[in-house]
Amino acid sequence: MASFETAPMSSAGGSATPIIGVFDSGFGGLTVLRALVARLPDARFVFIGDTARLPYGSKSRRTIARYAAQSAQFLVQEQGAEFLVIACNTASALALDAIQAAVTVPVLGVIEPGATAARAASRTGDVLVIATDATVQSHAYAAASRARGLRALEKACPLLVPLVEEGWTDHPVTAEVIRVYLNELNAEAAAAGLNPDTLVLGCTHYPLLRPLIEGAVPAGMRVIDSAEAAAEAAVLQFGGGIAHAKSSGDQMTSMELRCFATDSVEKFERLGSRFLGRPVGKVELVDLGG
Amino acid sequence: MASFETAPMSSAGGSATPIIGVFDSGFGGLTVLRALVARLPDARFVFIGDTARLPYGSKSRRTIARYAAQSAQFLVQEQGAEFLVIACNTASALALDAIQAAVTVPVLGVIEPGATAARAASRTGDVLVIATDATVQSHAYAAASRARGLRALEKACPLLVPLVEEGWTDHPVTAEVIRVYLNELNAEAAAAGLNPDTLVLGCTHYPLLRPLIEGAVPAGMRVIDSAEAAAEAAVLQFGGGIAHAKSSGDQMTSMELRCFATDSVEKFERLGSRFLGRPVGKVELVDLGG
Repeated sequence: MASFETAPMSSAGGSATPIIGVFDSGFGGLTVLRALVARLPDARFVFIGDTARLPYGSKSRRTIARYAAQSAQFLVQEQGAEFLVIACNTASALALDAIQAAVTVPVLGVIEPGATAARAASRTGDVLVIATDATVQSHAYAAASRARGLRALEKACPLLVPLVEEGWTDHPVTAEVIRVYLNELNAEAAAAGLNPDTLVLGCTHYPLLRPLIEGAVPAGMRVIDSAEAAAEAAVLQFGGGIAHAKSSGDQMTSMELRCFATDSVEKFERLGSRFLGRPVGKVELVDLGG
Repeated sequence: MASFETAPMSSAGGSATPIIGVFDSGFGGLTVLRALVARLPDARFVFIGDTARLPYGSKSRRTIARYAAQSAQFLVQEQGAEFLVIACNTASALALDAIQAAVTVPVLGVIEPGATAARAASRTGDVLVIATDATVQSHAYAAASRARGLRALEKACPLLVPLVEEGWTDHPVTAEVIRVYLNELNAEAAAAGLNPDTLVLGCTHYPLLRPLIEGAVPAGMRVIDSAEAAAEAAVLQFGGGIAHAKSSGDQMTSMELRCFATDSVEKFERLGSRFLGRPVGKVELVDLGG
């Protein structure tokens, strides 16, 4: 998987496929990478998980922006990434502007694609969003939904990430926690006079809970995965350049991936495969300071 | 509560009570501070929660040592602390040496007092310890127990901190999670031929779950709170100096506390009172870098 022996990846030389940089506070963003790989199997990816400072979901905008900009600069300046996907709802919600200001390449977050997918899925125009504390407090999904003519009700579900990281993705306790959260959310929606028919998974850990969540939502409710939606948007935005590079003589036939983490390389390697759906290979430790 | 308008606290001038610095990665350490205040109501305290970088429990020894040393230096060099209590099991387990090397004042962790209290409580000599991932992987409680002639079996319970922070301290889900963890731990103890009669709460968040935990342990099992044990040890180690200062003319009659956090001041103020058992007052933001 990790096909590169020396830093950095480079597209110098003419025939190389553009490098897509993918950033998350941890390894949840590997669900976005997994969706990207499914759509761009011949692309080259550099992933960084800022595991020394996770979780971002409980931190302030100022701190998240500072951390995220450091990771983005690492991907672009040191690893040669030509496109960035912010595979972290919290960083997308709170720091997309700061990241775009910190680098000179195109940057795609997960919030806008998630809202676009919700717009396409909803007939009633009312949607529910579950996410981390910080994502909800930013009301980024509500704003992106409103811009598309949707009404969105957001709820923080801070226990879901720890449950996924504990490996309890198919555990009765997790099913009960999801039931409690969704009952509260549906009651709030009813009290607000909403008629929601779509639920957005606004955290990259939640796709691993999709079976339990789909079993807990009311009949007929659509579940939107922002990881899938972001990968679709990335292909639309970046896919042309990659297709061009492929057709110009590049003989690579399998995805190339280089993974970095700011801490806990062993934990990343152990848990990462659950999110990526295949082994992540060797993860390299990088120090961003702090 | 926060009686100080200007930095730093100072004991210069002769009549001042020594300042006790208390450090945690978050606000869980306020349970240790609470136990200290109960024993030293006239002392002066400076608390720092390194909330920008919490939780430490899932991070590596190298990273934890670096973070903890920065906080310790802040308490001693910038706030004038003359004694330090490391009110964080993870930092005590992984970074006590690094902290002691970083400052010139006496430093007390929570592991040794917890093990001493377990030794006093246990008749069978077999004890159970529940803690974070990092504390368990350090095997610091096992080592401290062994040094006291105890056999200790440790178990990581990573869901308990998020459950406390979600406020589910009296929730059926939390009771069930505790039941699952303790059942696994008791089965492991039986398989290892142990006959445990004492359970150590090896994380400063766990005292808030004490009623649920006491309801879940086998009849007759003693529950040891490392926060209480650390406060007892602090009084033995530091109390003399404080009593001396009190009797030399200092007229303070109520605890003085200054609280710092590296992030999320609002969250700290909101959640902190649950741990301290009284309002934490105004929390000041401090930037330790990173």
